[in-house]
Amino acid sequence: MSASTFDLDIYVDWRSSFSFLGTILKVLALGPLFPALVALYYGEDLLPFLVAAAAMAVTGVGLERLRTDRDLGNREALLMVSVTWLVVPLFGTIPYLVAGQGTVAHPVNALFESMSGFTTTGATVLGEISVEQHSRSIMMWRQLTQWIGGMGILVLMVAILSELSVGGAQIISEEAPGFSLEKLTPRIQETARTLWKIYLGFTIAAALVYYGLHLAGLAPNMDLYNAIAHALTTLPTGGFSPKARSVEAFTPIVQWAVMPFMIVAGTNFALFWYVLQGEPKRLTDNPEFRSYLLAIGVVGLLISVLLGSGVGLATVPSNIGPLVGDVENSLRQGLFQTIAIVTTTGYASMDFNTWSQPTQLVLLFAMFLGGSAGSAAGSIKIVRWYIVYRAMGRQLFTTVHPTAVRPLRMSDSVIDEETVRDIFIFVLLFVSLFVFSTIVIYLDAVRTGLGISALEAMSVAIATLGNIGPGFGIVGPMNSFLPFSNLAKLYMVFLMWIGRLEIISVLVVFTPAYWRR
Amino acid sequence: MSASTFDLDIYVDWRSSFSFLGTILKVLALGPLFPALVALYYGEDLLPFLVAAAAMAVTGVGLERLRTDRDLGNREALLMVSVTWLVVPLFGTIPYLVAGQGTVAHPVNALFESMSGFTTTGATVLGEISVEQHSRSIMMWRQLTQWIGGMGILVLMVAILSELSVGGAQIISEEAPGFSLEKLTPRIQETARTLWKIYLGFTIAAALVYYGLHLAGLAPNMDLYNAIAHALTTLPTGGFSPKARSVEAFTPIVQWAVMPFMIVAGTNFALFWYVLQGEPKRLTDNPEFRSYLLAIGVVGLLISVLLGSGVGLATVPSNIGPLVGDVENSLRQGLFQTIAIVTTTGYASMDFNTWSQPTQLVLLFAMFLGGSAGSAAGSIKIVRWYIVYRAMGRQLFTTVHPTAVRPLRMSDSVIDEETVRDIFIFVLLFVSLFVFSTIVIYLDAVRTGLGISALEAMSVAIATLGNIGPGFGIVGPMNSFLPFSNLAKLYMVFLMWIGRLEIISVLVVFTPAYWRR
Ligand SMILES: [K+]
Ligand SMILES: [K+]
Repeated sequence: MSASTFDLDIYVDWRSSFSFLGTILKVLALGPLFPALVALYYGEDLLPFLVAAAAMAVTGVGLERLRTDRDLGNREALLMVSVTWLVVPLFGTIPYLVAGQGTVAHPVNALFESMSGFTTTGATVLGEISVEQHSRSIMMWRQLTQWIGGMGILVLMVAILSELSVGGAQIISEEAPGFSLEKLTPRIQETARTLWKIYLGFTIAAALVYYGLHLAGLAPNMDLYNAIAHALTTLPTGGFSPKARSVEAFTPIVQWAVMPFMIVAGTNFALFWYVLQGEPKRLTDNPEFRSYLLAIGVVGLLISVLLGSGVGLATVPSNIGPLVGDVENSLRQGLFQTIAIVTTTGYASMDFNTWSQPTQLVLLFAMFLGGSAGSAAGSIKIVRWYIVYRAMGRQLFTTVHPTAVRPLRMSDSVIDEETVRDIFIFVLLFVSLFVFSTIVIYLDAVRTGLGISALEAMSVAIATLGNIGPGFGIVGPMNSFLPFSNLAKLYMVFLMWIGRLEIISVLVVFTPAYWRR
Repeated sequence: MSASTFDLDIYVDWRSSFSFLGTILKVLALGPLFPALVALYYGEDLLPFLVAAAAMAVTGVGLERLRTDRDLGNREALLMVSVTWLVVPLFGTIPYLVAGQGTVAHPVNALFESMSGFTTTGATVLGEISVEQHSRSIMMWRQLTQWIGGMGILVLMVAILSELSVGGAQIISEEAPGFSLEKLTPRIQETARTLWKIYLGFTIAAALVYYGLHLAGLAPNMDLYNAIAHALTTLPTGGFSPKARSVEAFTPIVQWAVMPFMIVAGTNFALFWYVLQGEPKRLTDNPEFRSYLLAIGVVGLLISVLLGSGVGLATVPSNIGPLVGDVENSLRQGLFQTIAIVTTTGYASMDFNTWSQPTQLVLLFAMFLGGSAGSAAGSIKIVRWYIVYRAMGRQLFTTVHPTAVRPLRMSDSVIDEETVRDIFIFVLLFVSLFVFSTIVIYLDAVRTGLGISALEAMSVAIATLGNIGPGFGIVGPMNSFLPFSNLAKLYMVFLMWIGRLEIISVLVVFTPAYWRR
């Protein structure tokens, strides 16, 4: 055997990737300073945040020096993305570990909570969610990780993945030619700045509306802390709430107020850029946006009718008003829960563990929809389903007219066939990974004697892979993922990570072809 | 509005399609004569079969005259196929209706049972399966419908659908160039004859082996009637059994003997043609055949281990030997049930309603695999999954090397990209129809107060759409579909029909483009 067989001919400029990660870490070192301010205000411990900020800054500066003349090609960008969403959540565990409060003092739980935050999943392993058990500053760190993660995914989706043709993500740049980039680095900053402004603007608006309701006397417990906390987790479709009972803890008018912000959070942010340019029709005529509202309307009304007629409930919840025959309450619960699931936010306006199995199953299937591409929403995303169904319609035509050539169109542009194929592959890869993961998680539950139903096992897999957050039964919206084994939790950390990065961007790094010329 | 807007410009030569259906009906009029012979032997009523035969013969001769110079193009073939699998099952209800025995005397139930037969599904609405409740001749008609349906689907798949590029079915002809047809009509008869011989040969072999075990004293209750009955429902992957407890009613050695015949029934029959030509490697090297055996091995062993260790059971069945720690019994049950489900035969060697939910969920997911293309098996089929996973692997490569051109290969031939796309569309159409149907069936159950679980509802949809037969709970292998409403049963009749014909061949007939130039 010749020596060259063992020659590690690594073709990827990994130093550039890690140098870029260094810059990101350096910037994100500012993040812990916000909960540090909260700690100062409430007289809580500053140490967890100072340690985190210092660790990120030092590591960031160090990594940055790996390469001064860095040049990100396709592969370096892919590596950077995968590694960033792994390393940043690792640093994100520091405040939990240093603070040592409750269940997240354990390293595996801390990693789960941190990954769930930065991937905007919103699944939790907190034993008890309260500002008594956990300091307000630690809870604010938890919420902030989602806001940072949401911002990161917006930039990633619109500026990077769309250029790398990952799982048909190129559809986003076709939809938003204003954001199209020739080369990666030069215009990323410009794109990022525009997105950042829109994202920040909506976050501030949400906080003002939530707090405004409080000032108007319509939301007694929506104080400034809660208003900021929920604004930080609404826009990234995150779903972490400092309240154990999520948005159920607030008045009905708050629940109505959260809905439009969730819808905004699940919309392609590039379309808001057009609205700002004075072209609102680019939003309202957009096929994905219309399909997205249609899906929410159809599923929401179905669930509302099921709840309002009583057949949608297994047990009647005592902590919210009556549903049967109450139009406002049924509509509110049906729409809120549908929006929360379709946008993959994962908030709850009631415990849907009280729902009957048929209603839960509708919600389970809705988990596969996902919000819009170009938002921080997870799961498969509406635009992919839109293309899939358009391609099916075309198939029916070409079966009759085999020689007909019918390009698929979306808005004004033609979707090229490679994009269509990429989308098909993504959807089936997602569904296959869901099936495989359900079995893995279910068998691990059997191994550890954790009795869960098939519906619960499926909900765990899709809630983590789709970055949704809550599922059914033991992982219901008022419960937690704590009872699972450490092995299962680490597998779910993997699912949240790979799901967040559209699967293919991570898988590709594990192929030999990636590392070779 | 001009008159031409309302002008029905039907471009399809439907007379040719119906004339061809006439010929099929005429030939199938011979079918009822077999159960008539059984009736003669047992001294039972001949009338049900004579009426059916007469009705089919008369209608067949009548329809045949619609067109004497018939010419089947693509569209006429598609129409003929859809209409045949609807009209033949309608005529198949006549024996049930005339005999008036038990639940299938009701028209909706008769149609369900007949459609389930001719589509080789094996789902039943018989209230009580026994030769006491139903005459032996009526039960033989029920089994014969599956054998006829299986033969029909073999010819359809290999000779017609593969030419019409329905859902990527062209893959079959690429695998079996010996069967490739230039024009539809001339060589269909030759292909049909070859297939018919192989199918008949295996049926006779199965009957001889089953009855041989009886003669050798190893299968006391496998008399000649039962041997023929089970041979007639094994090869079409049908699964109807004259025994209420299916193959559980027989000795373990019978269960072992049924397994290889189910595997044969789920194999691409074109490959047996090569074996007869002295090229057995064409079978053993075939990627679909190898994937098929691999899938059976992996799922079968997993279920065997779950059953053998005890965690796979919810309740310990009292009517079969002990499973925990019994290697032979665990392997037998695990492999039998996996083979029965993957080949979509649907026989049962034990009541898998006694299994725990994790084990049932593994079986539910396995229902989406399907046997091989070019067999009478239903569901998605292994070759499609094979292509899907190969395309995913290629995707990982092309994400790194965007300019690389990598055609997918299977055996020696290149799979063209249109076929790959057709396969993706088929798989997603199948899964979407499954999701939609689960909700429809579940909501109808809610409407009629039929309490079923989410797992049961899903199993009903896939068991009918995938032409498998039994599901879980009330539709378990020893139960029946009787409790559903007539509306739900008619919807399931639709699912069996559309699932059997690879969905697209039916849907296409409902598009306006199909009927216009
Ligand atoms: K979420
Ligand atoms: K079957």
